[in-house]
Amino acid sequence: MTTQIIPVNRDVLAEKRVAAECFRAERTRQGTLVVHLMSSPGAGKTTLLQATARLLRERYRLAVLVGDLATERDAERLRPLLPAMQITTGGACHLEIGLVEPAFARLDMSPLDFLFIEDVGNLVCPASHDVGHHLRVLVQATTEGDDKAGKYPKAFRTAQALVINKIDLLAHVPFSIEVATADAHRIQPDLTVLHVSALTGAGIAEWCRYLENERQRLLAGREKERG
Amino acid sequence: MTTQIIPVNRDVLAEKRVAAECFRAERTRQGTLVVHLMSSPGAGKTTLLQATARLLRERYRLAVLVGDLATERDAERLRPLLPAMQITTGGACHLEIGLVEPAFARLDMSPLDFLFIEDVGNLVCPASHDVGHHLRVLVQATTEGDDKAGKYPKAFRTAQALVINKIDLLAHVPFSIEVATADAHRIQPDLTVLHVSALTGAGIAEWCRYLENERQRLLAGREKERG
Repeated sequence: MTTQIIPVNRDVLAEKRVAAECFRAERTRQGTLVVHLMSSPGAGKTTLLQATARLLRERYRLAVLVGDLATERDAERLRPLLPAMQITTGGACHLEIGLVEPAFARLDMSPLDFLFIEDVGNLVCPASHDVGHHLRVLVQATTEGDDKAGKYPKAFRTAQALVINKIDLLAHVPFSIEVATADAHRIQPDLTVLHVSALTGAGIAEWCRYLENERQRLLAGREKERG
Repeated sequence: MTTQIIPVNRDVLAEKRVAAECFRAERTRQGTLVVHLMSSPGAGKTTLLQATARLLRERYRLAVLVGDLATERDAERLRPLLPAMQITTGGACHLEIGLVEPAFARLDMSPLDFLFIEDVGNLVCPASHDVGHHLRVLVQATTEGDDKAGKYPKAFRTAQALVINKIDLLAHVPFSIEVATADAHRIQPDLTVLHVSALTGAGIAEWCRYLENERQRLLAGREKERG
């Protein structure tokens, strides 16, 4: 039996909230839409970003921060297509604004049109953290089963869009787009649902149009605020 | 700026370690092999347990504790085949011995031959917790890509076996069993690697033989200790 006194001299959570708000406000000012991508391991976030970059990089300034416990694997896959900075968390299960900010500074790329933040593959913990994003996008693969929204409610509740990936495998897996969509809308009725195969390119044009529209909304909101 | 004093009157981590050791020792005494299943969401833990129960339930006393943030979905799928107790964590990203023990007591099923503990779908956080198991088994689906071991090293380092699931989809996905196995063995050279399709039943007999052998080793070790 031991006794420990842990003095907490700062309101750490409030500091993180403020840092995330400031990061988002500065990106808004610069016209950069910050898109936070969250999913299970292997749902296809990196492949989706590769396909997205192929379509958007001619017309927009893009960059990505990519989180993993270890290795530079995802950044290495992305670098041929867009500037990519790997954040290795050294074991931590999610990104936080305190990791995002210095990685973004090292990128030295602002102003951008789109900044993607690919979180650690984890359908639980990243949902509790504001990484300074405008948009949280969940990627769910058809191979994961159509029962995920109810079982991982916070991830779905805090997202604006759900990208159902790997639709090229629909004929081979027990997955119903209708069931998955209804389950997700029970948790978050305003969720935009898109269907893609990042591997074959199906649905990628529509996903990119969604991103462009969201950025237009950000710019319009900014103009309105400036009056 | 606020100041908080949090008095910690107990060494909580040491208490959890002791509780997990005691739970494991008691199961060993009763001849129950405790198998902890860990994977990404949707890798197929529940389907694997369904297939396992179909093969083993005639000859052995089985039960399962199954963890999720919310819903009784997995327990409902398992109950037609074996006694199943759902542990809903209410948002927490992993199981702990403090959740396992009361759920096991509610099962009221000892002595068992096999107790399965299906953790929350999460390839990160459950790896840091001893739930009183003898064996940690990772389930990795071919649909998740063959680059996971390096990116989620603690899960692989703390496991004794890797079950590569969804081998029925090998023809349709970019996944090399050789690459995935080599990556896993770089992290944990003693890892036993098995290939199954929980959906079609391929490889399930071999997986069940592995479980039976591990239980025989537990019983033999127990006899040796008794002298």
